Amino acid sequence: MTSIENGSRVRRGRPGHSLDSLLDVAVAVFNERGYDATSMEELATRLGVTKSAIYHHVSSKVELLRLALDRALDALFAVTEEPGATSGPAIDRLEHVVRGSVRVLAAELPFVTLLLRVRGNSPVEQAALQRRRRFDRVVTDLVRAAEEEGDVRPDVDPAITSRLLFGTVNSLTEWYRPDGGLSADDLADALVATTFQGLRARPAPTPPS
Amino acid sequence: MTSIENGSRVRRGRPGHSLDSLLDVAVAVFNERGYDATSMEELATRLGVTKSAIYHHVSSKVELLRLALDRALDALFAVTEEPGATSGPAIDRLEHVVRGSVRVLAAELPFVTLLLRVRGNSPVEQAALQRRRRFDRVVTDLVRAAEEEGDVRPDVDPAITSRLLFGTVNSLTEWYRPDGGLSADDLADALVATTFQGLRARPAPTPPS
Repeated sequence: MTSIENGSRVRRGRPGHSLDSLLDVAVAVFNERGYDATSMEELATRLGVTKSAIYHHVSSKVELLRLALDRALDALFAVTEEPGATSGPAIDRLEHVVRGSVRVLAAELPFVTLLLRVRGNSPVEQAALQRRRRFDRVVTDLVRAAEEEGDVRPDVDPAITSRLLFGTVNSLTEWYRPDGGLSADDLADALVATTFQGLRARPAPTPPS
Repeated sequence: MTSIENGSRVRRGRPGHSLDSLLDVAVAVFNERGYDATSMEELATRLGVTKSAIYHHVSSKVELLRLALDRALDALFAVTEEPGATSGPAIDRLEHVVRGSVRVLAAELPFVTLLLRVRGNSPVEQAALQRRRRFDRVVTDLVRAAEEEGDVRPDVDPAITSRLLFGTVNSLTEWYRPDGGLSADDLADALVATTFQGLRARPAPTPPS
């Protein structure tokens, strides 16, 4: 395996393509055509380089996939380790993780989009799915803790609540575009307001029991 | 084009496969392998029939796609024409459409899943996307009307609220399985409770202004 470098800071002698810019193009093509349908030849053509220029950075197509998925997953797990996610009332920690996830999604949109399409067709995809499940457990545990602290409605199973909540977050990849005039912070505000407080302006006729 | 029959009621002489059962298998394979990657040969193999047995029902692979997408879309539009969606306060009509969409999603899960993956790669896909956008407008108009009636929070753009709401509904295709012990009605209850009233048990510290 080639060593991983941060291409935006450390560039090699070859013109134009760091590992980072290679990853950007690879992820764009994977999202457009599907990972399985994309060949290294095609990536080389898109990049305007030879295949050996790609092999200068990575040993295989699946290594590109692993690097791309890890970029999204590492960013999401980093959120769960921030102070806002590890101390204070669970409802606040949950909100912190939701806001942070929206921020990651906006900043790394193609990488998160790729992650959400992974179906487990290879060991690399299975490892990514396993990390996604671990992330989901962190969220579910926060929802459960917030319910025990009396801050989350007790009438819905915490596992369902967390799936619905992150279903909403993940669905942003379907329509959100960072250059569309809605900032990541405004998006996070709108999502947190509607999911935590609900879209109703008035209290519901029958409060949760 | 072959006439469309309801295969569950009207069966032809050939053994085993009505148009309905053909569609079920085709949609399962499209979801599994992708529409573009699936050949008529492959469908015939899966069905255990010859290609001409498939052409007995449809003229082309894209006709299978069109029938499958229309099945999901027709069911969704039918919801918007039910009495509960056309009279009464907008917030109740919105809730009716959300519940009905969850019901359709649970009943036609593979068809809705296929619909949500369509990216507009052919005229049939473009027509489906256009119908999806029309459905989205119906929902956005309901959210806007409910806001004007004072029932939906005014601090989030109705277009964003409706995208977040149906993002939640659509994300159900990622994890909901009708045979997993959660009924479509219970799922709709959980989704409506958390999205309309919010996941918080207590009123938010700062109510919407």
